[in-house]
Amino acid sequence: MTGFEVTPIGRVESSLTDPAAAPKQGPEGGPDAWLVIEPAVLDALDGVRPGARLVVLTWFHLARRDLLRVHPRDDPANPMQGVFNTRSADRPNPIGLHEVEVLAVEGERLHVRPLEAVDGTPVVDLKPVLD
Amino acid sequence: MTGFEVTPIGRVESSLTDPAAAPKQGPEGGPDAWLVIEPAVLDALDGVRPGARLVVLTWFHLARRDLLRVHPRDDPANPMQGVFNTRSADRPNPIGLHEVEVLAVEGERLHVRPLEAVDGTPVVDLKPVLD
Repeated sequence: MTGFEVTPIGRVESSLTDPAAAPKQGPEGGPDAWLVIEPAVLDALDGVRPGARLVVLTWFHLARRDLLRVHPRDDPANPMQGVFNTRSADRPNPIGLHEVEVLAVEGERLHVRPLEAVDGTPVVDLKPVLD
Repeated sequence: MTGFEVTPIGRVESSLTDPAAAPKQGPEGGPDAWLVIEPAVLDALDGVRPGARLVVLTWFHLARRDLLRVHPRDDPANPMQGVFNTRSADRPNPIGLHEVEVLAVEGERLHVRPLEAVDGTPVVDLKPVLD
């Protein structure tokens, strides 16, 4: 099947810089961070306000796309699993899902928490959390 | 920012063929469906078993990528909102999120429900639901 082009709609600004030291999931100590949205798609933020819960979709640009099986949570004590049965960043299409709360909206900058993605991670979509 | 290439890891086989007639969300009457996984990434399914809850990421190949504001749920009575504040399929990167239960695993075929994506929709990732 042919592929599709994903275009970043923004990027993460975070105090986290080392993927190996970052939490595995936001609630495991992910800090607050900023999402800096591309001016070209700023209208798509209309209606996003502080207090909103969003799913942030990122592109793990540092991940390996050729790994199909991994030790979950990078722990060799965990038996190998297919990556579709894990949240590993290493996967054929390294898209990350992060549920966050919006703390502030300042123009093209969204303050959110918690977020375990490292500084510079491309953001590819934002969606409201469905209850 | 430069873009990234998403490669489908499978596709949806469903009785739904008309996007306009499909439910907006799986729980709103989405039927059961099959995910047919590409042989090249079959090892990534290791450990996915019936009863598992997965997030299926799809690529809405019929969506418009140039719409930044829409009437939520295609209802003109709903005030226009930025697409990042809606679950509209029309968005810059038309990635769909669908929470499903795995009913059966038959080789490269996963039987799941509920799924509102139409027949032929590319699948780009599978992840376990985190509780």
